[in-house]
Amino acid sequence: MSKVLITTVPFGDKSRLPLDILKDNNIEYLINPLNKKLTENELVEMIDNFDCIIAGTELITKKVMDAASNLKMISRVGIGLDSVDLLEAEKHGIVVSYTPDAPAPAVAELTIGLMLTLLRSVQLSNLEMHYGKWHRFFGRRLSEVTIGIIGIGRIGTGVLRHLRGFGLPKILVNDIRHGDVLDVEWVDKETIYLQADIITIHTPLNAQTKNMIRKEQLLSMKEDAIIINTARGGIINEQDLYEVMKAGHLNGAAIDVFDMEPYNGNLREIQRCILTAHMGSMSVDCRTKMEIEATEEVIRFLTSQQLEGMVPEEEYTVQREGL
Amino acid sequence: MSKVLITTVPFGDKSRLPLDILKDNNIEYLINPLNKKLTENELVEMIDNFDCIIAGTELITKKVMDAASNLKMISRVGIGLDSVDLLEAEKHGIVVSYTPDAPAPAVAELTIGLMLTLLRSVQLSNLEMHYGKWHRFFGRRLSEVTIGIIGIGRIGTGVLRHLRGFGLPKILVNDIRHGDVLDVEWVDKETIYLQADIITIHTPLNAQTKNMIRKEQLLSMKEDAIIINTARGGIINEQDLYEVMKAGHLNGAAIDVFDMEPYNGNLREIQRCILTAHMGSMSVDCRTKMEIEATEEVIRFLTSQQLEGMVPEEEYTVQREGL
Repeated sequence: MSKVLITTVPFGDKSRLPLDILKDNNIEYLINPLNKKLTENELVEMIDNFDCIIAGTELITKKVMDAASNLKMISRVGIGLDSVDLLEAEKHGIVVSYTPDAPAPAVAELTIGLMLTLLRSVQLSNLEMHYGKWHRFFGRRLSEVTIGIIGIGRIGTGVLRHLRGFGLPKILVNDIRHGDVLDVEWVDKETIYLQADIITIHTPLNAQTKNMIRKEQLLSMKEDAIIINTARGGIINEQDLYEVMKAGHLNGAAIDVFDMEPYNGNLREIQRCILTAHMGSMSVDCRTKMEIEATEEVIRFLTSQQLEGMVPEEEYTVQREGL
Repeated sequence: MSKVLITTVPFGDKSRLPLDILKDNNIEYLINPLNKKLTENELVEMIDNFDCIIAGTELITKKVMDAASNLKMISRVGIGLDSVDLLEAEKHGIVVSYTPDAPAPAVAELTIGLMLTLLRSVQLSNLEMHYGKWHRFFGRRLSEVTIGIIGIGRIGTGVLRHLRGFGLPKILVNDIRHGDVLDVEWVDKETIYLQADIITIHTPLNAQTKNMIRKEQLLSMKEDAIIINTARGGIINEQDLYEVMKAGHLNGAAIDVFDMEPYNGNLREIQRCILTAHMGSMSVDCRTKMEIEATEEVIRFLTSQQLEGMVPEEEYTVQREGL
């Protein structure tokens, strides 16, 4: 009987369908008993004997794969592959699949919500009001500001589509691939840092984007700029963001993703920095879709059917050339 | 020299233009020295000698008008007329103008922001994260829920327009006037209470809408429904909302407007109730537009020019027949 380790949590929580699929196919599974994002060592201790992982964003390194004597397949629930050492997987003959489309709508919507919340200081007024203080914050509307989108793939495109419903904000876009997107201005990242009132990041984490936004970039932004990261921790340097905001720069930030999750760092001191617990993809519909797709891919693998979510060669190239 | 009392605060804060207009026209003015929404008695003590009021949402009653020996004109910064006794104004020969269009875009945007924040429990995660607790809340996307809009005038229509950018949420609409709005379902209010996952209110406050949503209506809503009031305090009964949420009903609420402002009531105990300080119209652009329009109307009045924002007869009819 094949054994599947489900590391991502929660899993099968809002819909039991993914678990039912495993049962119906006579597959033994274990859901991450620590109920949190696993460290490399925790995963090493857990992984032996399992044939497949239904994986979250925990690191799956050479060390993990060396310890995983039976591992033949990694099925990522989600899109980012920064956590998986694809080159080592290749060496170990481990197949890697993912679900790149499913999370995008949920991440894009959350991003718009964070923009509107920050533009109007909703989280600050809410905090003050609960303490009994009344202050009417001034805000801005989306159509009055310049929005910079760094990374215009599945999620960035979704953000753009939602923004169209708010008049015509001025939108600056940067991506390594110059795509065919209407009504936006393609610029370099530096121009976005200098000119945008809202900067939102939708790139993968890789050698090019790790620490892409450090103190220098943050300080080059407008004093009242807003920055949002619903992509991956590490793209914005957390300590630099803390220091810059502590010193009074930037009007607000929203950070959903962290170097180390669960997060417990010093951005917690900054009230104008909204912190959320990696919830970008956590709409019931998207999360369920991701879990089902990742589970079905495991079944396809274990029953020797054609896979549908195999990680494309270009993702291996990205890792070969960097990170 | 004519004298103008500016009761609404802040005023002339982000743009000095409204104040410059008054100065250029040789008009003496006083900005509300208490820097908060005035009570009836505070206004009574302040109003004597003034020819015009540039007014916020404070009550302008018979008592105020009786005390205002020179008052000839009320220029409301904003749209709601629940605070002005129009029939008494008529008896006193006081002209009333308002700026009904200017606030709508800002209120509509804030409403969408509140919907997205509540759907994804952003305010709860933000609070927990700042205390060092990591919990990944499940949420829903707009296109997965049914949205009920009560009142589809300037603001409700704006909300609807923004929602179009989020796929095609199912939208139920109720208004006393059956308008010509596409892709929505016209239903009675009870159907909205029963079926909607998000209920947002964009009616004026009047005899028909005061206490429109009491315990009975709140309890008829889905257990995990969300309710948003960016219209006027008093439309949802605050004490009933508190009791119902305290008992665990409703997934979330966002209340921007209150019976008594500044608000200091018991909804402060409910963390899943977002509270904001009457900030609906507080985007710099909308607020500035409202202030300029209301000021220019005062100038027109004082220089015997044709007014542009006179309150229409139907608003007098509403008050004659109710409140």
